[in-house]
Amino acid sequence: MPTLYSNEASGNSYKARLLASFLNIPLDIIQLDLQNGEQRGDKFLAINPQSEVPTLVDGDLILGLRRNPADITEEALITNWLAFAASWVQYGVFTARAIVSLGETFNGLGTTSTEQTLREAKIRGEKSLQILDQHLGSVEWLVLGRPTIAYIAVFPYVALAPMGDISLEPFGNVTRWIGRIRELPRFIPIDGLDDPLYLRTDRIT
Amino acid sequence: MPTLYSNEASGNSYKARLLASFLNIPLDIIQLDLQNGEQRGDKFLAINPQSEVPTLVDGDLILGLRRNPADITEEALITNWLAFAASWVQYGVFTARAIVSLGETFNGLGTTSTEQTLREAKIRGEKSLQILDQHLGSVEWLVLGRPTIAYIAVFPYVALAPMGDISLEPFGNVTRWIGRIRELPRFIPIDGLDDPLYLRTDRIT
Repeated sequence: MPTLYSNEASGNSYKARLLASFLNIPLDIIQLDLQNGEQRGDKFLAINPQSEVPTLVDGDLILGLRRNPADITEEALITNWLAFAASWVQYGVFTARAIVSLGETFNGLGTTSTEQTLREAKIRGEKSLQILDQHLGSVEWLVLGRPTIAYIAVFPYVALAPMGDISLEPFGNVTRWIGRIRELPRFIPIDGLDDPLYLRTDRIT
Repeated sequence: MPTLYSNEASGNSYKARLLASFLNIPLDIIQLDLQNGEQRGDKFLAINPQSEVPTLVDGDLILGLRRNPADITEEALITNWLAFAASWVQYGVFTARAIVSLGETFNGLGTTSTEQTLREAKIRGEKSLQILDQHLGSVEWLVLGRPTIAYIAVFPYVALAPMGDISLEPFGNVTRWIGRIRELPRFIPIDGLDDPLYLRTDRIT
């Protein structure tokens, strides 16, 4: 029986439990005490270094939110990165660029954004660059060992992060990945890749 | 030749242009002046009522960010809603619930969230419920006319929105959709569905 590391109050864990129930797949559910940091303890970290629930363990297969096991479909592996683009990238480097260079978030908030919105976008932006940089330390193309739509989804706003006053310099693996993309046949650039200040009119000083 | 409604500074438009270039697909590119609201003008609204770029038009096929044309793959249709869950739902109702009922955002910000973070989560939450409610006015199961993982991804945090002080009452289509899901065979609930206050210890008063 597959084991699901879960938490009662976690809606994401609930999604896994709910789907298993609908599909009539019995699960051995192990509750993690997230409030007391059990997900960051050595025992669980050995199972999922990203210390996130839900995590499904079925024999050799370990499925976590951002795990990339070998025996999962190509679509699912790519979808992982599309989700990363739609969440971390969108509410991080995308939002910072929009506020700093375009003057609003373009992110569902209309004109209600504040300095705090920008601070939070930068926090998420830096963290997503760390996640990406760590990942790109061992792979060349994000996923599947070759160019896919995953890098098309992730690359543009990551590469434009300096337009949001987020430096790419600390992230050597990301920078080299951007370089590899730019050298692909038929690559086309976007304004701002080489001049992060091109739209700036002192929107943020 | 397919027509792409695009904007030079839009990174999302750039993704479409970049992919077309890599795949060697020629495009007839029409620039929209987003700063002056051309995307909200009658001419473009007739093409894409969601007034978003990029929008690809190829004969009868119109592909926009959240369009659901008939002749697109099932995976792509489902992925649209997984992206909605990872973006609008995650940074809206999810975040509001986390702050109000769990005391932090659980959303990449650590403990730096403020009242402003909650305000913005509520704005996105309300808007995403509007988007969903409008969509569910004409369909029963989000996509493909049957239950898919799309509703598993979207349903939990939407249904738990009241835990983040976001009422579902104005959204009758969403409420009825939640009801349909709850009546499915082998449905299992999560704490908070019927008692939004169950975790509250005056974290936000």
